[in-house]
Amino acid sequence: MTTSRVLCPKFEEAFQLLGKRWTGLIVEVLLNGDCRRFKEISELIPNMSDRVLAERLKELEAKDIVERKVYPETPVRIEYILTPKGKDLQKATKDIHEWAEKWIDSSQEIVEN
Amino acid sequence: MTTSRVLCPKFEEAFQLLGKRWTGLIVEVLLNGDCRRFKEISELIPNMSDRVLAERLKELEAKDIVERKVYPETPVRIEYILTPKGKDLQKATKDIHEWAEKWIDSSQEIVEN
Repeated sequence: MTTSRVLCPKFEEAFQLLGKRWTGLIVEVLLNGDCRRFKEISELIPNMSDRVLAERLKELEAKDIVERKVYPETPVRIEYILTPKGKDLQKATKDIHEWAEKWIDSSQEIVEN
Repeated sequence: MTTSRVLCPKFEEAFQLLGKRWTGLIVEVLLNGDCRRFKEISELIPNMSDRVLAERLKELEAKDIVERKVYPETPVRIEYILTPKGKDLQKATKDIHEWAEKWIDSSQEIVEN
């Protein structure tokens, strides 16, 4: 039996967005809330280069998930905070995290292409 | 302030697994439960080629998310069903789906690299 249900392309877009290398982790760091500066995020994800972090933050800004806030202090302070759209990922990332903790064998490698 | 929390690589693996093109949709079709045969899954995701579906199902089998069941009937019947690990994705995919429905503008394209 087939159903006539139309599959939601938005759903796939969401997974592709969060599945992009490092993006899920960056969002998770920002959801945690106490690390907002470039250097802090970078230190928490040691295997990711600063070039890639800058690129991912720009993509997340373009998707309205992250907002780059500039505080005109001396020296200038720049923070990356989640927008309401970004904060709304809390529940989904928590579930994925729980699923991964329960089921993913860290010795297994994800097949990438 | 930085925290000493170690980020979970399993979490990223989970997002990469589900973020791989078509994989999230295939899992969603199987979670729905009434489409289990290759042709049925294929018909529900019309833009995906059968070659890619076969490849993704093999990857999902290798990750113990999908089980390929062969019923020795005439003609032989083959069904793809979710394992407990696969079924356990229900909550996370529901949340991602809700988030995507609420926030993803379907006119926007995901930047792929």
